[in-house]
Amino acid sequence: MMRIAVAQINAVLGDIEFNKNKILEYIEKARQRKVDLVVFPESSLLGYHPFDLLERDDLVETLEKTMCEIQKHIPSDLAVIYGTLTRNKSKKGRPYFNSAILLQKSKKPQVFNKQLLPTGDVFDEARFIEHGDLSKNVFKLKGKKFFLTICEDIWAWDYKKGSSSYIENPLKKIKEKNVDLVVNLSASPWFPGKEKMRHHVAQETAKHFKAPILYANLVGAQDEIIFDGASFVLSPQGKKMMQCQAFEEDLNIFDLDTNEAWAKPSHLSEIEKLHKALVLGIRDFCKKTGLTKVHLGLSGGIDSAVVACLAVDALGPHFVKSFALPGPYSTEKSLELAGQLAKNLKIEMFTSSINKPFETISKQIETEMEIKEFGLVHENLQSRLRGLFLMSYANHKNSLLLTTGNKSEYATGYSTLYGDMCGGLAPIGDLTKKQVYELAAYYNSTAKIIPQAIIDRPPTAELRPNQKDQDTLPPYEDLDKAVVNIVEKSKKPSNETEKWLIARLVATEFKRWQAAPILKASSHSFGRGRRWPLAHKAFKKN
Amino acid sequence: MMRIAVAQINAVLGDIEFNKNKILEYIEKARQRKVDLVVFPESSLLGYHPFDLLERDDLVETLEKTMCEIQKHIPSDLAVIYGTLTRNKSKKGRPYFNSAILLQKSKKPQVFNKQLLPTGDVFDEARFIEHGDLSKNVFKLKGKKFFLTICEDIWAWDYKKGSSSYIENPLKKIKEKNVDLVVNLSASPWFPGKEKMRHHVAQETAKHFKAPILYANLVGAQDEIIFDGASFVLSPQGKKMMQCQAFEEDLNIFDLDTNEAWAKPSHLSEIEKLHKALVLGIRDFCKKTGLTKVHLGLSGGIDSAVVACLAVDALGPHFVKSFALPGPYSTEKSLELAGQLAKNLKIEMFTSSINKPFETISKQIETEMEIKEFGLVHENLQSRLRGLFLMSYANHKNSLLLTTGNKSEYATGYSTLYGDMCGGLAPIGDLTKKQVYELAAYYNSTAKIIPQAIIDRPPTAELRPNQKDQDTLPPYEDLDKAVVNIVEKSKKPSNETEKWLIARLVATEFKRWQAAPILKASSHSFGRGRRWPLAHKAFKKN
Repeated sequence: MMRIAVAQINAVLGDIEFNKNKILEYIEKARQRKVDLVVFPESSLLGYHPFDLLERDDLVETLEKTMCEIQKHIPSDLAVIYGTLTRNKSKKGRPYFNSAILLQKSKKPQVFNKQLLPTGDVFDEARFIEHGDLSKNVFKLKGKKFFLTICEDIWAWDYKKGSSSYIENPLKKIKEKNVDLVVNLSASPWFPGKEKMRHHVAQETAKHFKAPILYANLVGAQDEIIFDGASFVLSPQGKKMMQCQAFEEDLNIFDLDTNEAWAKPSHLSEIEKLHKALVLGIRDFCKKTGLTKVHLGLSGGIDSAVVACLAVDALGPHFVKSFALPGPYSTEKSLELAGQLAKNLKIEMFTSSINKPFETISKQIETEMEIKEFGLVHENLQSRLRGLFLMSYANHKNSLLLTTGNKSEYATGYSTLYGDMCGGLAPIGDLTKKQVYELAAYYNSTAKIIPQAIIDRPPTAELRPNQKDQDTLPPYEDLDKAVVNIVEKSKKPSNETEKWLIARLVATEFKRWQAAPILKASSHSFGRGRRWPLAHKAFKKN
Repeated sequence: MMRIAVAQINAVLGDIEFNKNKILEYIEKARQRKVDLVVFPESSLLGYHPFDLLERDDLVETLEKTMCEIQKHIPSDLAVIYGTLTRNKSKKGRPYFNSAILLQKSKKPQVFNKQLLPTGDVFDEARFIEHGDLSKNVFKLKGKKFFLTICEDIWAWDYKKGSSSYIENPLKKIKEKNVDLVVNLSASPWFPGKEKMRHHVAQETAKHFKAPILYANLVGAQDEIIFDGASFVLSPQGKKMMQCQAFEEDLNIFDLDTNEAWAKPSHLSEIEKLHKALVLGIRDFCKKTGLTKVHLGLSGGIDSAVVACLAVDALGPHFVKSFALPGPYSTEKSLELAGQLAKNLKIEMFTSSINKPFETISKQIETEMEIKEFGLVHENLQSRLRGLFLMSYANHKNSLLLTTGNKSEYATGYSTLYGDMCGGLAPIGDLTKKQVYELAAYYNSTAKIIPQAIIDRPPTAELRPNQKDQDTLPPYEDLDKAVVNIVEKSKKPSNETEKWLIARLVATEFKRWQAAPILKASSHSFGRGRRWPLAHKAFKKN
């Protein structure tokens, strides 16, 4: 009997004391359930993704001290593996390793380092982390042989048509025989389809070693990135032998001798996953920045409606305030629908008209700048006045303004910089318009939370008379597909909408440079994982 | 006689046609001067830094086609080396190499790849670029043996106390004998002191190969990064045998047999370099984004004064417009000084009072949000109304708003998001307050451009009665030092100001996340080269 627990915890980046206590709490849970080994995710003592916090030495110093404190509390018959950073003691190379520590009572801690360092999309590990050497990552425990990997270490298997982002797969060079279990500590961001990719690489790894693999993934959100947990054990034949919950903390046990597992069944539909991901994203952003309140503008449209629903699920109605900010081109209907939604969600709604400020300032600007016709200046002015009201409230109440743009809007730059782009977090900034409607339908599938008219009416910014999004943008159905093909898959443009989109992307990149953090919910989101330059002439002749 | 030219060109990122023509133009110049080999900088056909434009295949396709076009135009007795990207034809590894091409009339082009890929600060080469193999980078030409390196390839030498960011220096493994010249193609960003660092690594390389080194650096600015050129030839003893101009295009010739060089002498003081760097930064940002006009708010303070001076140097007075935007707490003196400066610079100044909009909106907000006392909301409101006016003009005239914050302000978050932080480029965002004063003194050293009172008066945001920066911030003398120690050098805090600054950095990171691009003028700037997270608890207990 060799009982191994996965402790899927939600670590807070940089709160080493909190994470240590969380680790000790889960060690105690594991002890009570008579576990031989408990495995925590990658970087669970520091939290992940630290980005450039690693400029400062203090963090890793504290991590190293904390190891001793954890060891003091370990029961005599329980081994612990957790992820952390350790110092590269050589003067050569980058300053740290991304490590796993094997801790046992009264034994010297063993350190294993990550070899493959991801640098694509949101990852930046080759800035401060040095490569480890996987051939050193073998250890024995109670007569069993383990091979330890960290996240990216198992991702160099061939993917489509024999391709891989790595010249060599370091695992293929490991000739170690008779491994009983491969362990992988991960901090793997979620997006739709990610589970399948993990299953693929985990199974390839298990096959190679002819041993099961235990995949321990972090849960929780960090800025734009949402870690879903969903840790598992897989047989070399690809059978899931154990599965943890997604988007919440969990502890489950697997017996390496009997293949028995103790885990609650877990099955979520795709839309449930998306919903849980975004709720977790908002909740953890607030918790980990220390903010307790959020607010947003309700336009009577679908985007702000869905963001309001998500915010209420994340924080509860008492901590979500809403604003209706009617202007000269707002319809009565919009105001009424916003009010109805706020009522359904039991959130407070303030109403404040931008008419008078708009009149004052537009007159002044028209005169002083000799603007004779209604145009872009007036449209942006309305949007920026709304931003100004919402930011005044943010300053007054120390409340986080949620910005409500979706990915199709972001992609086309159909948004006003310093206007509706104001805010500290963009919860649906990585969702196509279609996904926003799907989430709305999901919300309405149990109770009628979102007034049907919000779903049915054509999208409009209401910044000029009878304006519709579709006056300026391609039909959302086409636009959404173009966004997926061009932004997420980097395909060659295959129709006019896609060609148009590339030109728009180039022309509006300056807006996204200054955008709020966007919760990542696709393989490639706007935000830190996508770094386009501004001053260039590429793709201008598409 | 073996005459080698360095063609230090200003490439436009993504404008492959433009860069090709520029390369052909310089090839012709070299031909006229009877040169045997002409060397262009790193990535000179594409421009640099492409960042994530490399998501899209189109660019490298075009680069490869363009090679043939260049070859067609090469004279029979002239060899050409230029930097570009080439496709990694294997299915394994990242999609491209950062390459140098040796082109000769009617000969098969030879390709050499960069091995070391920088990932620190502003660099992101490990996202799309695969490692090359330096041992293959030897070639012969007219009886001479050359060893070719690209930028980072020569940066793995030990630096302070025997430390290096690389575990191994690949150059130490190159045992090639009788090299006549080491060639290095670079796109190396400028900051004060960079020349010394380049001299160190170039000399170490030259010593290792017992051969001179020719260092061909790109010139021109790309978003936040300023390439200074200043290409050179160095003897193994560390003697500068040839030196190109800094911050402008140049072509100079060096004779490998006689050690003769043909170059204009070039010496710039540190302040001249800083000035030229920032002027180039503004000019190229405009040229390469396609914008022709800029504008800014003049507060009567030192920061906006210096930005105005730089803008005029970059674009000429006709293309720079200024705004005085007096509010309830502005002094007559500020308005007068702004006007005097605009007059001295011969730039147009518009005056527009924010008083009426401020009164209208503050009353409305006070009533609706039940705000009883003057405070942060009112201060930010004024700043945001100014942003609103300036952005209206940006929209109206398609003019680039320059934002005028300095690094000490950015570091402390002493600025209003969506207010004075509005703008498309922050020309002095990487300068301490001290450096801003030094630039002002430099401007006034020949003619009295900046009214002396702007330099002498204590800095103020004028957002409440008798406000001074020093009411809120530590004395700039202390703050500037803290910014250098904490932000640039990542030192441990050694006094109260430095401890305070770390806490401020953490608390205000959300503002910098949404900041405009900042011209990099130090070893570590805010902007894309510094990626701090938001939702964390690190350094909260300093």
